[in-house]
Amino acid sequence: MIEVIFLGTGGIKPTPERNVPSIAIKIGGEIILFDVGEGTLRQMEIARISPMKIKRVFITHFHGDHYLGLPALIQTMSLWKRKDPLHIYGPEGSSTFLQNLLNSGYFAPSFDILVHEISGKSRLKFKEYEVWAFEVSHGVPALGYVFKEKDKRGNFNLKKIKELGLEPGPWMKELERQKIIEINGKIVRLLEVTGPKKRGAKVVYSGDTEPCDEVIEFSRRGTLLIHEATYVNEEDRKDSYHTTIEEACEIWKKSKARKLVLFHRSPRYSFKEYKEKALSICPQAIIPRDFDRIAIEGAGDVLFKIR
Amino acid sequence: MIEVIFLGTGGIKPTPERNVPSIAIKIGGEIILFDVGEGTLRQMEIARISPMKIKRVFITHFHGDHYLGLPALIQTMSLWKRKDPLHIYGPEGSSTFLQNLLNSGYFAPSFDILVHEISGKSRLKFKEYEVWAFEVSHGVPALGYVFKEKDKRGNFNLKKIKELGLEPGPWMKELERQKIIEINGKIVRLLEVTGPKKRGAKVVYSGDTEPCDEVIEFSRRGTLLIHEATYVNEEDRKDSYHTTIEEACEIWKKSKARKLVLFHRSPRYSFKEYKEKALSICPQAIIPRDFDRIAIEGAGDVLFKIR
Repeated sequence: MIEVIFLGTGGIKPTPERNVPSIAIKIGGEIILFDVGEGTLRQMEIARISPMKIKRVFITHFHGDHYLGLPALIQTMSLWKRKDPLHIYGPEGSSTFLQNLLNSGYFAPSFDILVHEISGKSRLKFKEYEVWAFEVSHGVPALGYVFKEKDKRGNFNLKKIKELGLEPGPWMKELERQKIIEINGKIVRLLEVTGPKKRGAKVVYSGDTEPCDEVIEFSRRGTLLIHEATYVNEEDRKDSYHTTIEEACEIWKKSKARKLVLFHRSPRYSFKEYKEKALSICPQAIIPRDFDRIAIEGAGDVLFKIR
Repeated sequence: MIEVIFLGTGGIKPTPERNVPSIAIKIGGEIILFDVGEGTLRQMEIARISPMKIKRVFITHFHGDHYLGLPALIQTMSLWKRKDPLHIYGPEGSSTFLQNLLNSGYFAPSFDILVHEISGKSRLKFKEYEVWAFEVSHGVPALGYVFKEKDKRGNFNLKKIKELGLEPGPWMKELERQKIIEINGKIVRLLEVTGPKKRGAKVVYSGDTEPCDEVIEFSRRGTLLIHEATYVNEEDRKDSYHTTIEEACEIWKKSKARKLVLFHRSPRYSFKEYKEKALSICPQAIIPRDFDRIAIEGAGDVLFKIR
C-alpha cells in the first residue's frame, strides 16, 4: 500500500487555510517529496512526517511556490546530523538554482546533496518504484512526474504447484528471487505458479502547466492523476500557463486514469467556493485539503481517503 | 503609538505551535520587519498585515531560520505589482547572499531591491524613526538592532504662550516646523512654549547572540528589550552562540530597559514548559506567542499587550 499525503494544496502563495505545493508519497518506510513550497517543513511537522525519511525530492519547476521550502528542510536534516545523501531531481537549470540557494546563507549540510537535472522524457528506476519525468508547458523549464509502484507477483497458485508435483516450501522464496529455478529436476518459472501480476499504483502529478498532451500520454491507466487546476475558468486564468478545472477534467477523461485530484488552487478562491465550482464541473474529482491522505492498495483496487 | 507584532517567536526550526523568527513594528501606516524566517508571509496573512506596507527589512544574520522567508515575500509583492523600492539591511555578506537567493529560481521583482550592508555600529535615520545597528556574537556576522521612534515635542504650554503676549494660532504650526520663528517682532523658540519632550519608544532586538555587552550598551533606557533566550540553561545551550534565560534576564537588569521579552525559544521546549521555567527565573519577563502584539505609547509610559 502507498499513501499520497497532501502537504500543500494551494498555488502561487500561501493563505492561512492552505499552504503552497508539496505532495509526499509514503512507500514502506520511505517518503518521496514532489515539490517543496515554502513552509513544507512545518507542514511535515504538523503531519508528523520526519524529513529524515526523505531520500528523494522531485521539483517540477523553479517558481518560488514550488521549491522555497527546500533549504529549511536541508537545514533541519543537518541539525539532526543526517548522513544519507539527499537526491534532488528537477528540470534544466536545477543545479545552478540549488547551488545559489545553498549559497544564500550559512549552510553546512552534514550530508551529500546530489542534483539530477532532467530534460525530456526520463525513466528513473529505484528499488520499490520508478519515477518517470516528462516536460510540460509552463513558460519556464517544467516537469510533470509519474510515481509508478513496482508491480508485484501474483499470489502463489497452490493448484498449479501441486500439478507440478511440488509442495509449498522454502523454494518459493528462492523462486521469488530468481524468477526461475530448478527443483526436483524440474525448471520452474515464477509466472507458471502464480496468479496474474498485481499492478503497482501509478500516481501522476502534472506540476504547473497549461493543458498538454504529455499529461494524457503519461497518465494512461493511471491510478491517480493529480492535475493542477489553478483557475475555475479561462477568464481568471487569462494568459498564464495554467489549467482550468474544466480542462483538467477533460484531460483526466482522455487519460482514463481512475481518479482525478484537482490541485494548486489559486489563493483567490476559498476552499468552499472552489469545491462547489469544481464538483459542478467534474463531480468525480477529489479536491483535497492540506493534510488529506489517499491510501492506494495496488493499482487502485482499493482507494480510500483518510483525513 | 507603535505596535510590536510577533510573527514568529521560535528559533532554529518551526514547530506546529510557533514559527521561526520575525518581528514586525507598525508605525503609522508603515511596517518594518526584523528577520523574515521561512513562512513569515503566511504568518502575515494570518495576522492580516499586508506585505505591501513594508518599506524596510532588517536581517540580523544569514542562518536559514532568520531570512528564508524573504523570497516568498518578494514574490508576492511582485504578484501585486509593487512599484516602491524595498530596502533590505543586513550584516557583511548580505548582498552576495541576497543575490544568490534571487538567483535560486525564476524571480522577476517588479520593484527595486536595495541591499544595505552594515558593519560595526550604525545609525540610520528615517522620517519617523531611526534604526541603529550593532554587532553581536553569534559565530557568523550578526547584528542586533534598535528601533528608535523619534521623540516628539512637548505639549504647547498656554501659560508660557500668554506670558509672551501671544495667543494660540496658526503660527504654532509654523513654529513646529521651523523650531524658531519671529512673530509680532519677537523670536519664539519651540522649546520655550512647550512642555518636556515626549521620548519615542525604543525597542531593542538582540538577534541571535551569546551574552554580549553591546546589547546592554544599546538597550540603556530602552522601552522593550527583545532578547534571544534560546535555551533554559547552559547545559542545553552547550557551546552554541546563544543565550540562556538567566543570562538574558541579567542583561536586561543591567540595561535598565523597562521590559524584557524572551525570544527565539528552542523547538525542544513546549511553550508551557518554557514559560514556567522563564517566570521562575525572571518573573517580569514577557514570553510572547506567535501573533501577540505589544502596543507602546511614547517611551513606554503606556505599555499593554493585545492578544
